[in-house]
Amino acid sequence: MNIGIVGTGMVGETLATKLISLDHKVKMGSRSATNEKASAWVKKNGANASQGTFADAAKFGEIIINCTKGEVSLDALKMAGEENLKGKVLIDVSNGLDFSKGMPPTLTVCNTDSVGEQIQKNYPLAKVIKAFNTMNYLIMVNPRQLSGAHSFFLCGNDAEAKIKVSELLKSFGWKEEEILDLGDITASRGMEMVLPLWLKLMMKFNSGAFNFNIVK
Amino acid sequence: MNIGIVGTGMVGETLATKLISLDHKVKMGSRSATNEKASAWVKKNGANASQGTFADAAKFGEIIINCTKGEVSLDALKMAGEENLKGKVLIDVSNGLDFSKGMPPTLTVCNTDSVGEQIQKNYPLAKVIKAFNTMNYLIMVNPRQLSGAHSFFLCGNDAEAKIKVSELLKSFGWKEEEILDLGDITASRGMEMVLPLWLKLMMKFNSGAFNFNIVK
Repeated sequence: MNIGIVGTGMVGETLATKLISLDHKVKMGSRSATNEKASAWVKKNGANASQGTFADAAKFGEIIINCTKGEVSLDALKMAGEENLKGKVLIDVSNGLDFSKGMPPTLTVCNTDSVGEQIQKNYPLAKVIKAFNTMNYLIMVNPRQLSGAHSFFLCGNDAEAKIKVSELLKSFGWKEEEILDLGDITASRGMEMVLPLWLKLMMKFNSGAFNFNIVK
Repeated sequence: MNIGIVGTGMVGETLATKLISLDHKVKMGSRSATNEKASAWVKKNGANASQGTFADAAKFGEIIINCTKGEVSLDALKMAGEENLKGKVLIDVSNGLDFSKGMPPTLTVCNTDSVGEQIQKNYPLAKVIKAFNTMNYLIMVNPRQLSGAHSFFLCGNDAEAKIKVSELLKSFGWKEEEILDLGDITASRGMEMVLPLWLKLMMKFNSGAFNFNIVK
């Protein structure tokens, strides 16, 4: 499948590299078509890896993954272009964090709204799926590194898009029963608001190598 | 031990009954010393059960448990009285929920503050421990009803108070390794902000019989 990655940070690079390993064609997009991090990644990842602007990556992808920081995601997606997002599955991995008052950060939006909802509202023809934002990037692509079953939360308004994303997740090593569909995109509020607890746990363990599991 | 329960809702009653079953003396406090729910509970629970005002319950308890709704907790604790809270372990179980715009509720305070922090700030001589607020009340007192290990989050500024609360938790059936101390009272922000996710899960399962477990 052709997949466009919006953002060149650790999360974007980790997902992009995993997707290449699974034989997908991946275009990594950034503000500049010649971004050095993206160039270095393309060099390491062979013929299926390419780079371009946010718009190039969005145009390229059947699935687009927003891996920019939540506080700049709307700007980045504006550059990606409404035309290039229309009708596409748009996976939103972002968390909007405000570090202006030091550590730990607060959220840029929460309680009555969320980044995932804002993206869906701005791009009503994109099929936004909130996913991946409640865990460390290494867990995203290698779920079996943890000692037991754990949960992958997702939400969004489009049922077919959820099936597509679930297939991708299973190819990453997630088990069907670990994937918890929380309903429509308004659930992204709860998914983003778990971040302050996640951060306290990360500080406690001095590691991001953990995840939430829902036990019944 | 003498334990004061502030609040007569399902959470307060469930914790109070569990404590009676473990041979503690429990006074259930409400706005009125003759609250009917508290009277009914006292009748059912024998000589170790008593009732009174918020102030009576707080005065009675070596440990006080705030089981009022988060949106009215500061009012209830004001009635309990600063003198009666001073030097005591004050377990705060509350979540501040705003139902004014329908379901699901939003939080009355979050992101830059929390009910737990507000209580500690208002009663600096109380030893506030945030606990129990991330799960259904039936799980609180019967953790072994779930199929596997799961996590009990707590936080607070006083190390001895945490030890006291942990001992109580173990008498409820919680295992030492399930109790996760998240640090000082500022972690109550993250603990309260998990509610929107918890609510989406409760709606998905149509049941509150689940809990979070941290998997490493």
